[in-house]
Amino acid sequence: MKTGLKIATIGGGSSYTPELIEGFIHYYNELPVQEIWLVDVVDGKEKLEIVGNLAKRMVKKAGVPIEIHLTLDRKEALKSADFVTTQFRVGMLEARGKDERIPLKHGVIGQETNGPGGLFKALRTIPVILDICREMEELCPNAWLINFTNPAGMVTEAVLRFSNIEKVVGLCNVPIGMEMGVAALLGVDPNRVRIDFAGLNHMVYGLDVFVDGISVKEQVMTLLTDPEKSITMQNIHAMGWEPEFLKALNVLPCPYHNYYYKSGEMLAEELKNYQEGGTRAEVVKKLEAELFELYKNPELAIKPPQLEKRGGAYYSEAAVRLIHSIYTDKRDIQTVNTRNNGAISNLPSDSAVEVSCIITSVGPKPIAVGELPMQVNGLVQQIKSFERAAINAAISGDYGTALLAMTINPLVPSDRIAKVILDEMLEAHKRYLPQFH
Amino acid sequence: MKTGLKIATIGGGSSYTPELIEGFIHYYNELPVQEIWLVDVVDGKEKLEIVGNLAKRMVKKAGVPIEIHLTLDRKEALKSADFVTTQFRVGMLEARGKDERIPLKHGVIGQETNGPGGLFKALRTIPVILDICREMEELCPNAWLINFTNPAGMVTEAVLRFSNIEKVVGLCNVPIGMEMGVAALLGVDPNRVRIDFAGLNHMVYGLDVFVDGISVKEQVMTLLTDPEKSITMQNIHAMGWEPEFLKALNVLPCPYHNYYYKSGEMLAEELKNYQEGGTRAEVVKKLEAELFELYKNPELAIKPPQLEKRGGAYYSEAAVRLIHSIYTDKRDIQTVNTRNNGAISNLPSDSAVEVSCIITSVGPKPIAVGELPMQVNGLVQQIKSFERAAINAAISGDYGTALLAMTINPLVPSDRIAKVILDEMLEAHKRYLPQFH
Amino acid sequence: MKTGLKIATIGGGSSYTPELIEGFIHYYNELPVQEIWLVDVVDGKEKLEIVGNLAKRMVKKAGVPIEIHLTLDRKEALKSADFVTTQFRVGMLEARGKDERIPLKHGVIGQETNGPGGLFKALRTIPVILDICREMEELCPNAWLINFTNPAGMVTEAVLRFSNIEKVVGLCNVPIGMEMGVAALLGVDPNRVRIDFAGLNHMVYGLDVFVDGISVKEQVMTLLTDPEKSITMQNIHAMGWEPEFLKALNVLPCPYHNYYYKSGEMLAEELKNYQEGGTRAEVVKKLEAELFELYKNPELAIKPPQLEKRGGAYYSEAAVRLIHSIYTDKRDIQTVNTRNNGAISNLPSDSAVEVSCIITSVGPKPIAVGELPMQVNGLVQQIKSFERAAINAAISGDYGTALLAMTINPLVPSDRIAKVILDEMLEAHKRYLPQFH
Amino acid sequence: MKTGLKIATIGGGSSYTPELIEGFIHYYNELPVQEIWLVDVVDGKEKLEIVGNLAKRMVKKAGVPIEIHLTLDRKEALKSADFVTTQFRVGMLEARGKDERIPLKHGVIGQETNGPGGLFKALRTIPVILDICREMEELCPNAWLINFTNPAGMVTEAVLRFSNIEKVVGLCNVPIGMEMGVAALLGVDPNRVRIDFAGLNHMVYGLDVFVDGISVKEQVMTLLTDPEKSITMQNIHAMGWEPEFLKALNVLPCPYHNYYYKSGEMLAEELKNYQEGGTRAEVVKKLEAELFELYKNPELAIKPPQLEKRGGAYYSEAAVRLIHSIYTDKRDIQTVNTRNNGAISNLPSDSAVEVSCIITSVGPKPIAVGELPMQVNGLVQQIKSFERAAINAAISGDYGTALLAMTINPLVPSDRIAKVILDEMLEAHKRYLPQFH
Repeated sequence: MKTGLKIATIGGGSSYTPELIEGFIHYYNELPVQEIWLVDVVDGKEKLEIVGNLAKRMVKKAGVPIEIHLTLDRKEALKSADFVTTQFRVGMLEARGKDERIPLKHGVIGQETNGPGGLFKALRTIPVILDICREMEELCPNAWLINFTNPAGMVTEAVLRFSNIEKVVGLCNVPIGMEMGVAALLGVDPNRVRIDFAGLNHMVYGLDVFVDGISVKEQVMTLLTDPEKSITMQNIHAMGWEPEFLKALNVLPCPYHNYYYKSGEMLAEELKNYQEGGTRAEVVKKLEAELFELYKNPELAIKPPQLEKRGGAYYSEAAVRLIHSIYTDKRDIQTVNTRNNGAISNLPSDSAVEVSCIITSVGPKPIAVGELPMQVNGLVQQIKSFERAAINAAISGDYGTALLAMTINPLVPSDRIAKVILDEMLEAHKRYLPQFH
Repeated sequence: MKTGLKIATIGGGSSYTPELIEGFIHYYNELPVQEIWLVDVVDGKEKLEIVGNLAKRMVKKAGVPIEIHLTLDRKEALKSADFVTTQFRVGMLEARGKDERIPLKHGVIGQETNGPGGLFKALRTIPVILDICREMEELCPNAWLINFTNPAGMVTEAVLRFSNIEKVVGLCNVPIGMEMGVAALLGVDPNRVRIDFAGLNHMVYGLDVFVDGISVKEQVMTLLTDPEKSITMQNIHAMGWEPEFLKALNVLPCPYHNYYYKSGEMLAEELKNYQEGGTRAEVVKKLEAELFELYKNPELAIKPPQLEKRGGAYYSEAAVRLIHSIYTDKRDIQTVNTRNNGAISNLPSDSAVEVSCIITSVGPKPIAVGELPMQVNGLVQQIKSFERAAINAAISGDYGTALLAMTINPLVPSDRIAKVILDEMLEAHKRYLPQFH
Repeated sequence: MKTGLKIATIGGGSSYTPELIEGFIHYYNELPVQEIWLVDVVDGKEKLEIVGNLAKRMVKKAGVPIEIHLTLDRKEALKSADFVTTQFRVGMLEARGKDERIPLKHGVIGQETNGPGGLFKALRTIPVILDICREMEELCPNAWLINFTNPAGMVTEAVLRFSNIEKVVGLCNVPIGMEMGVAALLGVDPNRVRIDFAGLNHMVYGLDVFVDGISVKEQVMTLLTDPEKSITMQNIHAMGWEPEFLKALNVLPCPYHNYYYKSGEMLAEELKNYQEGGTRAEVVKKLEAELFELYKNPELAIKPPQLEKRGGAYYSEAAVRLIHSIYTDKRDIQTVNTRNNGAISNLPSDSAVEVSCIITSVGPKPIAVGELPMQVNGLVQQIKSFERAAINAAISGDYGTALLAMTINPLVPSDRIAKVILDEMLEAHKRYLPQFH
Repeated sequence: MKTGLKIATIGGGSSYTPELIEGFIHYYNELPVQEIWLVDVVDGKEKLEIVGNLAKRMVKKAGVPIEIHLTLDRKEALKSADFVTTQFRVGMLEARGKDERIPLKHGVIGQETNGPGGLFKALRTIPVILDICREMEELCPNAWLINFTNPAGMVTEAVLRFSNIEKVVGLCNVPIGMEMGVAALLGVDPNRVRIDFAGLNHMVYGLDVFVDGISVKEQVMTLLTDPEKSITMQNIHAMGWEPEFLKALNVLPCPYHNYYYKSGEMLAEELKNYQEGGTRAEVVKKLEAELFELYKNPELAIKPPQLEKRGGAYYSEAAVRLIHSIYTDKRDIQTVNTRNNGAISNLPSDSAVEVSCIITSVGPKPIAVGELPMQVNGLVQQIKSFERAAINAAISGDYGTALLAMTINPLVPSDRIAKVILDEMLEAHKRYLPQFH
């Protein structure tokens, strides 16, 4: 097996980077990384330097011979890379703020992954990821692309269907977060918990939940009807599920399902925050500013614990664990976004799905799910229709297709409101949407 | 071929009956009906007599030897019937009023077929239709069941999956109404118009539109963006589609799609009507009262033209045309609710779908559609998930399943609101929901 | 609708042509054909003239103003054509003789459509049909391609999957022949018989059989166990099916199923004929020579009745009936080879299947079959695997793919024997297989 | 987790039993088996005692506290069992001899799993396994049924579809044998080899082959064209594949594929053996007699090495490894016969398939394969059609269905020959086929 691996991290100036570095340090003995190239755009130069210097202090303190390189030249970073990780954000937090606020202004939840906000994140991100893929074809055709950039499901599907890069995996921290959450709920070690996942990114369900191989689904589902005991994410307010509804649903929803099974309440809450000036983007922005202040401290040489509040907890865990399993042909079970290949019978074979997989040296192989339970199939299909339309719009730059995607999104109440939001967002994000000019 | 056919019409006291009678008179030469048995429940006795007497006058005036029988004994009506038509309404218009008003009270569209109202209509109707099926097995096992009772899709599916009656067809006037509407829009004879339909009841799309076999889809779609030129139903307010949205949708929506692609505006309008006391049920009630006044007139011996305002236009056309084609093995194309059997690849084979079919002596045979276009698949799947949950609830009487159906309905904003509406409706319709006690 | 239609008939010198002309004469009032262009290759010039002159005498005698044009210039014939019919045979009967004799020499049935012979017919024919398609794109992009050239299933699939011509239909006389055969068996008028067909070309089953819309399947199946009463083709010796086998099969096999359910006996018989010098190709050659002698007779101005012995009975009926239904948007049921589009759930959507269709102005629309019955699915799938491999070989000219197709053919007993036959046939047909050099 | 496990082994008097005992001894530390109940029928009493006594000596010598119980009372053995393993043979080797010889007498390969012989093995075995399942429901409803009895695929499918026992796995030594064979071919440790398997029992393909996670498929396929280097089973004569055929097939065939891709040569060889009196049953009978002679030796307290020649090598390995992984929720990859559940898209979801699975505490979960490659799909489907018909015949005892299964088997050349063989075999196995009387 190849040793002396080269990692290229696109969006290397992200506040998540210290988690990633921590991961590579942790696995160093089994995953012999020699170089990590952190690359970012000119606008992100300052952050890149701050976080890059922290990364250098971290490897030094850990005593591992990993070289940290900082660059603004993506091609230099990609050249001969073995793994490319992407965690960039086109338009930065500024853009996210617009993704959230513009829909809210018209009484609609923004939802930065599967909602109107997610549509615009896809429109901005997909052309960039396809550029990266074209460069990879030339500079590192055998590398694995490990994508964390949201909307991770749509981005992965765009790569699978519209680039020549087949070695791509999309990563999200929701599945691992849910396993951690269940562990915390039950007071057991996370390693003893396993969930059978199936669905789409941010639209994933736990079909069964195990501790030491014994199903505890019913127990967990009962706990989830108590709002005090939810397993929700940092950034989603738990409200507790209606007990009889959850029992009849008969699978474990993910935190993002609150947007769909509790749209009314979520909207009310977001509108309140919006009117008080505090959407999630603003909160994150503040958190990030604080984090970068910490990162600047030349005494700091570990990942600061405050990072976990950021909402991206377990990303490092997830990403490095995945790279490690591919590299070692570990054949363990991880939940990632990958080509469906028939695993979920009622979704297209060539679509990206988020599903429990065996991770092998040739990538993730989904465990067959069969048909999604009828009671959740409808919503999943609706999001998949939205995702396909959004991807088509991102690639074609076609206005009508973008309007279609916006209108069929389950959070958007009509074609007319869709058009109003769309027009305002196209204008607001103009700089990052060259395909629409 | 058998002659001297016996027709049993359940809910024979309906205001629609004169249309049906008119149809049988029209086709008499090719469809030799000898007896029509109009049967109704005790509560509907007066209406049955009014409409039954009109029916007698109609056949007399037409000079055809069809015998009209009136009865409250369903078994007598079913005995040796060749075709059973069902147009009953459990709980009558009173119940429909509740189906509409209770959800609106909580800010939710009632929608009597695919919405919360439709859920309750299914809960009331499905047990009755299955009773009828059990009686048919015994009394007329070879008869065809032609169901017009709404929600026609769910009722048909319940019969297909949970009874031993295989010879069932569900009928709706939406497809024929759309063809008539297109004809009117274009100023051509309706016989020259053909639409390729696929979807579900009240959730059907025109995949292509032809005049004399030449596609006029683009032209029709352009016209539909003009609210003045819509092909909507009597009971749905047209607003015109956003042009770019409709073009990207690339199929012809049905009038009921306004509830899903214009939920915001439809809700606003219904709330306004509700607050002013005029939901659709009230309008229909008034219309019906007027119709029965007309029917009482002993001079009247034809279907009064006022009936067309009732919203059920073309039902007679559709029902008798269908019976005629089955009886004569005509093999013409009609759009009905029938077992999917793979015609729409991405819907379950054993589900009812609404699709263009060839009508033969052994029933409707769907024309293969392949996969629904991705852009409409999501919504159709969501309604199918809702339908399956609603049917399961109707049969099991399980509270949680009913709550699940209510929550996953795309018109309902959360599990909590779903529960509030559900509880109030279960109480309001108690008399007709024995399975929930 | 367009009048003054132009028909281009490729392989116009075929002995079948008089049937076609007869058909166009018969339908002239509803199908206003103005020009028929018979085109053939240089080697077929003499035949073209003989048959072309007969055609001219036929239209003259019939008194219809159809112009008959004879040409060796395919492009001239295709220019602005409305319908292109193909009935050519690459390598003529000479080649068919080799297709039959070489496999038999090695103890294997040749079978000119689904067997080793059919493989070679596909290898010779597919490149030519794709050439024609390329010319059609340029010269008559809106024309319909009506292909009778065998193997009609594979040729149609090759056009569907590897050309830009979407308006293609493959025709075979087996379905119409089976309906005629059933009519004769039962002594009823053929117009009263309808069979629901599904399967592949020369591998089609009758799922049900009706007279006047009433199923007579059981009666027909019982008759078919009597070898004296078979409905087989001119060119396949009937032996009668084992009664219990046929009853359990529960569908009507086509005559070509003798090759698969009676391989042993068919092989023995063919070997006997082969040793006695009389394979089917020889018989046909003799018949053809006789036919052309008849055609030469300047007194002859109708289709001579002897043509029906040729094995192609009903082709004229089938082809002109199909063109007529497309032209008039007739929406009647005909059985043709067309894109599956999900009609048979367990075959690929993009494959050609032979199935009962509604014939509309936009072509054939298959009636949904659902899943093939389990008991016949295996054999159909095996032939489809063979067909796909054969088409791939025809297009790529890849030796290994051709060997794969030969080996997985159910008539071929081993990879080793497959190689021997393949090598000998590649050599024998060298002239017509440029893609393999 | 439960300790003190009880194992019930039906057909405990089999010559394979020492392998099984060896396996339980090997895994004892992680798999705390307390009791093994060997049960057999009266006719097998002597063998049961011989092998049971050897088993007792083995555990004693190994120093593990496993109790060996011998019984003729199946219910006693099943009571509260945790795992039930089945390795019985209805009619013993005598019956296998007939399965092979009767078809050969009529010029047809017997093939004891997927051929005519396999049909009869299924007809004899399925009723017995369903009896066992009914007893399990009552006596050990939570036990896992680990079936090695051939035809393992059909037996597993019969249990899945026609019993209430859902916890069933079918085991075959072919996949593990192929991994061992590849290891031997390449001279590497078997633990470094992994094959991605998909197909049916004795009809399984290696879709890819890895050493240390690196694909070596091409290298292995090249080696397999050399008859000296095959990875065939003890009981199947290797002949080497045609190089171009194997390359185009592009997947690794299993040894049993010789029966289908080399039917001619296999038949010739079997006929030769048959005429010389040495079918496989005779060879095995002789081997078994020798083994039992060895087993009788009171000094023997280990599995004798001669057992490996028996053809069942690695069964012990496979069975105990499987039980161990279920018990410990190990989540390793093993290839077993289990419910397809969509893993192979083009096979029925409720059918048994042989496929690489993750073995968890809730049983095997197939890794999604997607569609089988087109070039092998046909044969696999044909065997599945045969299997379904055979299972239906075993359950119904219907003569016609049995004749159908026999006729559609790819090794049988016609309905007529099928009937001759069927009749003779029904008579010969009469005693074990009560359902056919």
